[in-house]
Order: sequence, then C-alpha cells, then structure tokens
Amino acid sequence: MKAFEALGIRFDGQTVRVLDQTQLPDAEVWLNGSDPDAMVGHIQRLSVRGAPLIGVAAAVSLASLAERGARASAVRAAALRLRAARPTAVNLMTAIDRLLARTVPRYEAAAVIDEAERIFDEDVALCDAMAAHGAALIAGGEQILTHCNTGGLATAGIGTALGVIRRAHEAGKHVHVYVDETRPLLQGARLTTWELRTLGIPHTLITDSMAAVCMHEGRVQRVLVGADRIARNGDVANKVGTYGVAVSASHHGIPFHAVAPWTTVDLACPDGAHIPVEHRRPEEVRGMRGRFGTVRWAPEDTPAFNPAFDVTPVALVTSLILDRGVVSRDEITDGALARVAAPPAGALHAPLPHAFDDGGDALAAADAERDKGG
Amino acid sequence: MKAFEALGIRFDGQTVRVLDQTQLPDAEVWLNGSDPDAMVGHIQRLSVRGAPLIGVAAAVSLASLAERGARASAVRAAALRLRAARPTAVNLMTAIDRLLARTVPRYEAAAVIDEAERIFDEDVALCDAMAAHGAALIAGGEQILTHCNTGGLATAGIGTALGVIRRAHEAGKHVHVYVDETRPLLQGARLTTWELRTLGIPHTLITDSMAAVCMHEGRVQRVLVGADRIARNGDVANKVGTYGVAVSASHHGIPFHAVAPWTTVDLACPDGAHIPVEHRRPEEVRGMRGRFGTVRWAPEDTPAFNPAFDVTPVALVTSLILDRGVVSRDEITDGALARVAAPPAGALHAPLPHAFDDGGDALAAADAERDKGG
Repeated sequence: MKAFEALGIRFDGQTVRVLDQTQLPDAEVWLNGSDPDAMVGHIQRLSVRGAPLIGVAAAVSLASLAERGARASAVRAAALRLRAARPTAVNLMTAIDRLLARTVPRYEAAAVIDEAERIFDEDVALCDAMAAHGAALIAGGEQILTHCNTGGLATAGIGTALGVIRRAHEAGKHVHVYVDETRPLLQGARLTTWELRTLGIPHTLITDSMAAVCMHEGRVQRVLVGADRIARNGDVANKVGTYGVAVSASHHGIPFHAVAPWTTVDLACPDGAHIPVEHRRPEEVRGMRGRFGTVRWAPEDTPAFNPAFDVTPVALVTSLILDRGVVSRDEITDGALARVAAPPAGALHAPLPHAFDDGGDALAAADAERDKGG
Repeated sequence: MKAFEALGIRFDGQTVRVLDQTQLPDAEVWLNGSDPDAMVGHIQRLSVRGAPLIGVAAAVSLASLAERGARASAVRAAALRLRAARPTAVNLMTAIDRLLARTVPRYEAAAVIDEAERIFDEDVALCDAMAAHGAALIAGGEQILTHCNTGGLATAGIGTALGVIRRAHEAGKHVHVYVDETRPLLQGARLTTWELRTLGIPHTLITDSMAAVCMHEGRVQRVLVGADRIARNGDVANKVGTYGVAVSASHHGIPFHAVAPWTTVDLACPDGAHIPVEHRRPEEVRGMRGRFGTVRWAPEDTPAFNPAFDVTPVALVTSLILDRGVVSRDEITDGALARVAAPPAGALHAPLPHAFDDGGDALAAADAERDKGG
C-alpha cells in the first residue's frame, strides 16, 4: 500500500497510525492501527472518529493485514469485526463491503490494497468537491454555526462542513465560526477549535445551550453540519444535538445544510426511522474523560440517557451539500437522492449496500469450508 | 433574628451559613455568610445561587450585620454592595430595596431584621403557593423536562419549578423528570439530580443538546423552568439555554411554563430587551471547575461567549405559574401582569422598584452628612 499522510491518519509504508483524538487538543499521540482488532478498539473508544475517517481507517487497517500475508479467511473475519465496530455511520459498512467485494470470487491481497487506496484517494477528492460546492453558497462576512467536528480530523481530506468553511475562508470571505462544544464528548470544544486555530479561522466557542440565543441575536447566518448517514428520503443522522440546532435554525429562518459525500447517502434506508442509533454509556453524561483523567460532577448512580446521534427530518434541511452538487429540500422530496447518490454504473468498486448485514455468516462458512480443504 | 434552617441557608441565632453549591453533590460544605462582603463573594462565585435564594441570603446577611450593632451608614453601604453583586435577578434588588426602605426616615436595626424575617417567611410561603397552583396542571404519568436548578437549593422553601414537581410527586402523579445538565455550570447535573435523588423522584440526566430529540421521541409532555426576571410584557429571563428549550417545546407543541413568585416580575421593565444579561468568564465554557479542581478541554486561548442568561419571549410561554395563580399567555398579552404582580396596596414592605438604581449616591451622601454631624 502506498504511503500517505492526513491530519488524523498516516501510513509510512510499514505501520498504519491514527491520531488519538481523545488526547487533543493538549497532546498529539499516534496509535498503531495496523492490526484490525486494535483499530476496532480505537474506533470504539473514539480515538478515531468522524464517519468518513472511520471508513478510511478500517479499510486501511484491513489492507495492511492483507499486505502482511494474512489468509483470506482471516482478512474476511477481521473485515466483519471492523464492520461491526460502530452501528450508525454507513461509511464504515460501505468501505468494508467494497473491500469484501474485491475478495470474491477469488481472494487476492493486491485487490484489497487497491480498493483501500481508492477509498482514501476518493475521500480526499470528495472533500474537495463538497468544499467547492458549499463555499459557493457562502456570502462575505457570514457567521456560521457548526456542531461536532467535521474537518480534517473526521476525514482523509479537508473535511465536510469544516472543509466548506475552510474554502470560504481561503477565498477571503471573512467568515466567523460559532462552535457548539458538542456534549457529551466535546468534539467541538476539543477538536474543531483546534483545527480552526491551526487554520487561522476566526471562531467563538459556545455551549450547545447557547446556539438558539446566538441565532436570536443575529450572530448566525448559516448552519453547516456533517452527517453520519442520510436516508433515501433526505433525513439526516448526525451527532446528537444536530436536531435541536436544526429546530432552532428553522425557527429563526436560518439556512441549515448537511455536508456529506454521496457515500453517506444510504439508498437502502427509506427514512430516518430506519437508521439505528447507537446508545453509549451513562458515564459520558455524568462527567467527562480527557487527558486530565476522568471527572464526574453528577451523583455517581444518576440515571442518564446517552444517544450518540439524532435524526433531523428532511423538512428542517435547507439543502444537502454533496460532492456531486447541492440538492435542495424540494429536489430531495422529488426523489433526487436516488439519482444523485447512485453508485457509478458498472463501477467495480460500487458499494454493495448491506450485502454483509447477515454478519457474513454465509461467507465465513464458505471460508471455513475452503480452509479445511486447503 | 430568629433561627431558621433551609436546604441552602441556615441561621442558628449567631451565624448565617450558606451551603457551598459549587461543592455539591460530592460534599456539603457550609460557608460563613454573616459578613455582607463575604456574602457578596459567595453570590458572585455562585456558592449561593437561585434568584430567590440570592435575595434571601443578601437580606439575612444584612440583617445579621444590623443585629451586631453596625451603624446606619455601614448597613446602607453594605446593602448597596450586596445589591450590585449580580445584575440579572430582580429578587436581589427587591430584597435589598425592602430592607433599605425600612431604614428611612430613621434607621433602626430591629426594622431591618424584621424585614429580613418577612422576606424569608414569604419566600417559603410563595414556594408553597406556586407548587399548589402548578401541581394542579400536571397529569398522571407526565414526563417533565427542566433546566438548571429551581428547587430547595434555589429558594428558602421547596423551590419554584422543582417545587411544582415535588408536590405533583407527593400527590402520587408518578412524574418522571428529564434533567438538562445546564452547561456551563452544570446546575442540573450537579444540583437538580442531587435534590431529586434526595426526594426519591424518578429522573434521567441528559445533555442540553438532547432536549429536542427527547421531545421528538415523545419523552417530554411538559417543560417547567424557573425565572430570574420577568418583564411586564411576560418575557422571561432565565438560565442560558432556557430559550432553546422554549423554541423546541414550541416546535413540538409541548406546554412551556416559567414558575416564579410575583416578586420576580419587574413591572418597571417593559420587555426582555430591557433586562440586563450578565456575561461571565470564558474559562467557564472552555472547561469545568468542580470539587475535583479545574479541568480544561478546549485550547487555552480559545475565544468563548458566555452569557449567563437568555430571554424567552412571551410568545413561547404557555403560561406563568405564579404564587398568585396561573397566568396564560393571552392573559399576559392583555396586560394581566400589571394587576397580578402589583405589590399589596399600602404594604409597608412593598418593593420600591429601582429606587436605588442610582447606586444609592443620594442616600450615601445623606449618611455621610449625618455621620459627620453625629
């Protein structure tokens, strides 16, 4: 596999390394992710996060295993463990399914590696395309509110929503960013501030509870967020809190956009009600874990609710900014996503949506059979 | 002054003590508040908080100074320092103005002490009255969302919004409370959970960013919050984040009530635009200070916005639950507050709204004159 270097993931020809995002902004610690099971841990502990980056990291880790000469059954079994690491982001399933599709009818390491490289390169290109479409919408002097982290730390490229902001800034549009801190895991406070600071883009950190009053006071002219999965009808699953931001934006007549590559659109999923939402541990709500250790401010046994994502109905979405162009709510309602987000006709690397949703039982059985024979 | 004991303030006949709410829920530390200047510090550091309790604590501290034989000029000067401790809650100004009104035309310690005792007793009675009116609105099995802390820790009695919830619970209505954590200072996560646990009322802690999705999922049938100041037109200033909750409640057709004593209504204030909003230090948004010390998760120099309050326009308020009854939005729009929240005719202890808004310069000059002569 060819070497590469992105903000949150690197491959030097030998070892896959991922930046431990739980240690930011105070320390840059790189973790070894060459072993797919280690990568599963990094993904589950959110050291690696951001829907596109999770897909890229899983693919690259699997390719690294293949490159080191693992047998087909081991590569496929690792693929299925990676695929199940987190349930909501479709990019992870899509990336793994693309790699698995290259293992049939015959397994060859080179094909898996080739597909992982394509996924990486495509992600970079997708970010550039989204940023170009999105930046064209931004007027000079706009104040933009964003939620969670959607930048270079969430993708292999310049990001989704934050990529749009970066391009607008580079084009001299004098944007100012209001950054939702994004409880419970504070990706906005920890990561988006760090990226914006690095890029020299003016910004102000707020608690999530201040987004509505910022809108009311005229401090926000646009909302840009990412997406973890977009259903065929345009409903958007994204970091918890996005829905509340969308409700407030709608109340104040402020445009609300989700920025995502077409690979985030899950045409097999009819609407938001069919998107599985991951629920996480109550400890995350009772306090905070950071580089300083774990602190708790609520009573130890307080019951807490902790969905990692929520779903914003398409009715609250002004438009989706995809790499293939901007799609308005009306166009989405007219069924545009089925056309805009369709895989390229006859593409070798087209995703096979949910082909392995059975947990790969059939494939594993076939592998076991073959290994026995071989 | 007679001895008393409330959840957050005590007087044993000698020393005024206030519970340090910044140490909850992990430790119960009582601070000496007999000296008004110490009390100003406790109020500014939020060891004492909750609009009604701040007023009671300031009054009791001033009465304690008077009881110890301070001269008129010292009592009046301390009163003005207490009055300026925090700018948003009208209860503080009202309480101090009531005490100051009892020092003219002639200063007597007994009158100041009598007024402080009245303020304490009234606060207890006001809480009971609000709770009775509010609990009558609650249906069996309701799930109620609340923001910040409005219970026994915020008042001398059983609380405002939380007092309503407590009475409904005691009446066997099987309520369940969704508690907004209330960033940045986490009064919901630290204090409301602690009170609900003590009272045995079922509850679930959420981040502020989850309130909207809880409403969308049918987990919330009513919103009850407190108020720091209510303008004559019904606009409600309360802990930052209240406005966003009100916008979401309106979007989902969920009743939204502010619960407050009539003393929170500032008839001299025409509307929310005239309520001064306190802005606090950016450090509070960049991290969190608790019993565990100070932790920071955002980059050290990240710019942050930190208004302590926001204003919810009356258009988003279903009704106000006052001690004098429930007043609907339509009644408020018809001018009901001017009648409902008027001071009792001829009451000796009627508040003198903003009588000392000049910072007491005239009064201080008269005192200086008198001290010189005496």
